Amino acid sequence: MPTKAVVYNDAHDVSIEEIDDPTLTSPNDAILEVTQTAICGSDLHMYEGRAGAEPGMAFGHEIMGEISEVGDGVEQLSPGDRVVLPFNVACGYCRNCEEGHYGYCENVESATPGGAYGYVKMGSYQGGQAERVRVPYADHNALKIPDDPANGTPEDFIMLADVFPTGWHGVELADLQPGESVAIFGAGPVGLMAAYSAHLRGASEIYVVDRVESRLELADEHCNATAINFEERDAVEAITDAHGGGVDKGVDAVGYQAIEDGRDGESAYDESRENPSIILNQLIDAVRPTGKIGIVGLYVSDDPDQPDHIGEQGLLRVHLGTAFEKGLRFGMGQCPVKRYNRRLRDMIIAGEAEPGFVISHTTSLDEAPEMYERFDEREEGVTKVLLEP
Amino acid sequence: MPTKAVVYNDAHDVSIEEIDDPTLTSPNDAILEVTQTAICGSDLHMYEGRAGAEPGMAFGHEIMGEISEVGDGVEQLSPGDRVVLPFNVACGYCRNCEEGHYGYCENVESATPGGAYGYVKMGSYQGGQAERVRVPYADHNALKIPDDPANGTPEDFIMLADVFPTGWHGVELADLQPGESVAIFGAGPVGLMAAYSAHLRGASEIYVVDRVESRLELADEHCNATAINFEERDAVEAITDAHGGGVDKGVDAVGYQAIEDGRDGESAYDESRENPSIILNQLIDAVRPTGKIGIVGLYVSDDPDQPDHIGEQGLLRVHLGTAFEKGLRFGMGQCPVKRYNRRLRDMIIAGEAEPGFVISHTTSLDEAPEMYERFDEREEGVTKVLLEP
Amino acid sequence: MPTKAVVYNDAHDVSIEEIDDPTLTSPNDAILEVTQTAICGSDLHMYEGRAGAEPGMAFGHEIMGEISEVGDGVEQLSPGDRVVLPFNVACGYCRNCEEGHYGYCENVESATPGGAYGYVKMGSYQGGQAERVRVPYADHNALKIPDDPANGTPEDFIMLADVFPTGWHGVELADLQPGESVAIFGAGPVGLMAAYSAHLRGASEIYVVDRVESRLELADEHCNATAINFEERDAVEAITDAHGGGVDKGVDAVGYQAIEDGRDGESAYDESRENPSIILNQLIDAVRPTGKIGIVGLYVSDDPDQPDHIGEQGLLRVHLGTAFEKGLRFGMGQCPVKRYNRRLRDMIIAGEAEPGFVISHTTSLDEAPEMYERFDEREEGVTKVLLEP
Amino acid sequence: MPTKAVVYNDAHDVSIEEIDDPTLTSPNDAILEVTQTAICGSDLHMYEGRAGAEPGMAFGHEIMGEISEVGDGVEQLSPGDRVVLPFNVACGYCRNCEEGHYGYCENVESATPGGAYGYVKMGSYQGGQAERVRVPYADHNALKIPDDPANGTPEDFIMLADVFPTGWHGVELADLQPGESVAIFGAGPVGLMAAYSAHLRGASEIYVVDRVESRLELADEHCNATAINFEERDAVEAITDAHGGGVDKGVDAVGYQAIEDGRDGESAYDESRENPSIILNQLIDAVRPTGKIGIVGLYVSDDPDQPDHIGEQGLLRVHLGTAFEKGLRFGMGQCPVKRYNRRLRDMIIAGEAEPGFVISHTTSLDEAPEMYERFDEREEGVTKVLLEP
Repeated sequence: MPTKAVVYNDAHDVSIEEIDDPTLTSPNDAILEVTQTAICGSDLHMYEGRAGAEPGMAFGHEIMGEISEVGDGVEQLSPGDRVVLPFNVACGYCRNCEEGHYGYCENVESATPGGAYGYVKMGSYQGGQAERVRVPYADHNALKIPDDPANGTPEDFIMLADVFPTGWHGVELADLQPGESVAIFGAGPVGLMAAYSAHLRGASEIYVVDRVESRLELADEHCNATAINFEERDAVEAITDAHGGGVDKGVDAVGYQAIEDGRDGESAYDESRENPSIILNQLIDAVRPTGKIGIVGLYVSDDPDQPDHIGEQGLLRVHLGTAFEKGLRFGMGQCPVKRYNRRLRDMIIAGEAEPGFVISHTTSLDEAPEMYERFDEREEGVTKVLLEP
Repeated sequence: MPTKAVVYNDAHDVSIEEIDDPTLTSPNDAILEVTQTAICGSDLHMYEGRAGAEPGMAFGHEIMGEISEVGDGVEQLSPGDRVVLPFNVACGYCRNCEEGHYGYCENVESATPGGAYGYVKMGSYQGGQAERVRVPYADHNALKIPDDPANGTPEDFIMLADVFPTGWHGVELADLQPGESVAIFGAGPVGLMAAYSAHLRGASEIYVVDRVESRLELADEHCNATAINFEERDAVEAITDAHGGGVDKGVDAVGYQAIEDGRDGESAYDESRENPSIILNQLIDAVRPTGKIGIVGLYVSDDPDQPDHIGEQGLLRVHLGTAFEKGLRFGMGQCPVKRYNRRLRDMIIAGEAEPGFVISHTTSLDEAPEMYERFDEREEGVTKVLLEP
Repeated sequence: MPTKAVVYNDAHDVSIEEIDDPTLTSPNDAILEVTQTAICGSDLHMYEGRAGAEPGMAFGHEIMGEISEVGDGVEQLSPGDRVVLPFNVACGYCRNCEEGHYGYCENVESATPGGAYGYVKMGSYQGGQAERVRVPYADHNALKIPDDPANGTPEDFIMLADVFPTGWHGVELADLQPGESVAIFGAGPVGLMAAYSAHLRGASEIYVVDRVESRLELADEHCNATAINFEERDAVEAITDAHGGGVDKGVDAVGYQAIEDGRDGESAYDESRENPSIILNQLIDAVRPTGKIGIVGLYVSDDPDQPDHIGEQGLLRVHLGTAFEKGLRFGMGQCPVKRYNRRLRDMIIAGEAEPGFVISHTTSLDEAPEMYERFDEREEGVTKVLLEP
Repeated sequence: MPTKAVVYNDAHDVSIEEIDDPTLTSPNDAILEVTQTAICGSDLHMYEGRAGAEPGMAFGHEIMGEISEVGDGVEQLSPGDRVVLPFNVACGYCRNCEEGHYGYCENVESATPGGAYGYVKMGSYQGGQAERVRVPYADHNALKIPDDPANGTPEDFIMLADVFPTGWHGVELADLQPGESVAIFGAGPVGLMAAYSAHLRGASEIYVVDRVESRLELADEHCNATAINFEERDAVEAITDAHGGGVDKGVDAVGYQAIEDGRDGESAYDESRENPSIILNQLIDAVRPTGKIGIVGLYVSDDPDQPDHIGEQGLLRVHLGTAFEKGLRFGMGQCPVKRYNRRLRDMIIAGEAEPGFVISHTTSLDEAPEMYERFDEREEGVTKVLLEP
């Protein structure tokens, strides 16, 4: 029996195809019937042909569903269990997993530490924008969702696969303490979840910087944040004017595809405006001395699309002298979802968190190709797309 | 009554001059008769004319001596007390001091947070390479040394002013845990103290990279470290060959005045070989995924001597994509000496630490100009110079 | 000029008396005109004659007001500044202060580390239930309140003197993480502030145990807590029934004057029902294995009123075997207010926290004797009394 | 094929018996040929009949050997691999394991969280004082030892199973920082390993309290500790005399079977001298205000041998009032071996740690019954017994 999946063909070209049905390959595997799966901003890097994806690959690493089959070594899961998966595939027992670095598992099928479903350089694990998917190390990787939770919708729980923990990781890397101020660059799903996390953790002031008004409105409405449109005014100035001396902490939820502001006349989203180091340098200027910066927006060591853009090896021009003089700290990298997802789930069940507000569109799996296109165009109002196979 | 001091005249030119004797300017001040004071690698930045020092300025921020006078508000110090000063001048009660960021005190006489004795941009506090010096916020800033300690020489205790805590801070910023491996770039006094700190904290493997054999020998002898001479072989290769997958942690004890290796034929120390971002990028390659890097070598936001060198604002070309993919963390900046000096002092008194081994030369204050010259030339064997006024 | 103050005469007897006006005794002192001061539950220990207070002593350690005079060594305060004081008196520079243990300052005028205004065994510092009070180490001890904050009333800001930080300290000692569950024993002002802190920090489930309905209602209304009246049902059972396996964390906001439940017929508050170890043992049963418990309710090493009650030296009968088998952790003691008050103030100003809800009565200083009596009787509805001199 | 093992018959009676050979019961199991296994002080609790052990049970939870067989789900182990096991049996993926609380695994075959080999109330896992033993969750629970390590003997590596990590856990629970002072009660193998850990972590002063001279000599010789024989002088006085104001941190490596000093004339080890709360109260007196105490000596919730001794539920008479007034913190419970064993192994391999010095006797498995008897009598010089099946 084949499985329908979102399959990559070429840059800006995905389609729904039938692929081999997943099977148990280890006693620790399980098979999941996918009920919800979302498109992630990082899928767009692959979609745009900038990440070296191979044709035929199935995308998707935000996955929720029902267990349909388990291997002999799986003890805590049974068919019928409703679970959400961390986007990371991890063994749970290597040195990095032991230390909570689930994004850098040393035992996954990958050249460098770290695995994920449907993602380049992260092992050959099938993507979950599909009807069914294999779950390796299933006892470790599946988080159970109650059948009848006191609070929480599927839209809320699917957020636990990636963007809610990733936003949370951003403020965690920045070591945000209750009562502190924070600037968050980027109001895509991850940036919004970072702002929401800051709000849930008791931040006193939250500044969110973006150019898409509908996203900034969500930050204002759900996160008690001050929205700053960088096409209209200088973001660093706006932050330091509002908060003398700079904010305590900062989060980069944009990454290397950042664009310069268009106050000289440009206004459309356009790759020619890209400047991969602008966010980092603005954060260095926006935080106060002794500040800390969490980087969860994606940076890459090479960019097949624009080799000159960031040079070989992802060389960025960073104001390190200023950062040293201010005594800053930086943390970066993929979120170890499992470090956070259990407690974030409990916040949803307790009615303390409703992260599903970022989902703007819910469609069938078949509409995925169209939604990829609209999401990639940063269409106003297309914040986050949920697919229901 | 005037005070003799080491005074800056021009690039590569200091002399012993008489300056105004320090007086109490606040009830919280004390006056110190200096008995020991050392020359720091960071003094060389000013000495070389690369830091914008004004002629007439007295240098020196590593200071030990005897209290001779105290203001009415000073409660815990009395004339005759033997003390060592942190190089940072700090009030002790501002937000940054409260949080232990003594290097970023907000109440010092400086345009930006952070004060120090005899240092540019760190307030107008007189340097301590002098017979006498004023100690602001004396109860906060002076650390008492017993008159007759069970263990410890003046050479050991003067190390508490800067280089021992600064080396310690390097491994602390790298969050070095007992049993972990660490690579330390630079075997000047700070690098040696970082390696020594790693050893005292139970590191399992310590790699130290430099080009000066006499320094590498100290690392081997006192810190149980593996010495790597980067003029002879590639440092990153040497480290990753010895420790598959990279070391757990890294420390940059070099900073922006780093030089490229000379395996193409060059061998003398020479500014033309400078490459301000080489150390940071080598550390990014040398640590394993999930590693952490502490940066205590100096980086500056502008370099009057070589404006093109690192561009305006200290822009460095950093492999941020690689760092992101590896999930690294970075901490940097001046050491908050008071966070560590009490316990390091107790380790000296208990006979557990003898950091004075880095001092290679002890002279009178009058010989300071000659010693500055020899130290600046990185003369083989001139590791650290102690002056006794 | 004398100062009016609440003065202790004998057990259950305080009156308004004129005492010597405070004067500057050190260059680091300031004098404060008190505008708000509150009665604390710990004042009742002295009021009841159970803490060895000397007649003539002025009470009061929750103090807000306006600076009227400063010593020569005070740099950051000026007459007219509006400030709130931590209840701890602390120097800011001794080893304990350096490490943030402001409740255990080694330089205060006290036989053992730790000072406070108007409190036995905590130095001879005059209490602040008075018109004026001396502020030692004023730069360190005074927290500024803006004249015209965006949010926050005097009722909110006076909470920063003790009960809001003390409640916060309770959940901090318990290491409460966002998304975790917590049980708080006691819904007096400190217990309510602990529950409120847990809510602000993102706890998923909060259980509050008390016997006074009006207090339990505040917990429900302001802290999203589940209220448990221990006169009606077994508290541990109620918690473990609701949260299988026990809660993650616990806070003791009651202390040694705890009473047994009255389900056998007793119902009035009555010293004969006291059992000083009941709360601690209930917490040991209520938290899950690996749990952590913060103890901010007062325990004493001797009890002049009931020497047999807890034996010499405050011996309690503790289920340590169970605690060991569960692998629990305990933290206890006075709150170091200054560790938290700045950020809690900023949460008030940002509109994120409104702790003033616990104040049930605001009166003039002259009415203090009557309010002490009513508060001591645990009169329904008398949660917290604010005095305005 | 049967397996020879040390089997419990009755109080003070163990013998070598043949038991069923272990087999793979799950795809995640492995079978280990035991090469080294040690007798632990906690085995004596069972041996003395005070822990409710059932006749026929095989003892032993300190186990090293060679993998002989692995299940289909085991990925990282192969027959021939040399490994040492943590005494804890743990799944690696439940909530407690995730948070590093491997001693409280929720998925083991036990009524309460936490599993171990050959130990009552810790699941039915066969003990390892045997020729062969089953290793559940083998990928998680086995730590590899290189075949030809640069440093380290079998005596060193077997220490990784329990006592070295447990001693380390004691100082970790006490949050011992380099340069701090610490008092360790008990110089049995765990106490010695706590003192050794303190030394490896850079403690400035280490006090070790016991009554057995041969053990105190090991503390002096290997840990640079000051030895205190509590039969000769008051331990608290000795500590506070030597270190004014009390030590920074404390470790209880004795537990509930502590005995009072015999300075009134008694001198033999004798259960009638037992006082289960004496160590804890001495530690409360010996540490300075703000101190922290780690408890790794065993406390039990009931004592079948002496039901009146500690009352039902392990009630101890604790000076909690003093602890509160001093602001102390306590951590306790079983060591999560896997949190530490990898890095401690690396310290052994690097030549930085040689914990095998505590082993006083190495014998064949057959001599175990005799060695149990001599160890239980606290025979002078019998510190730790290693068995080689």
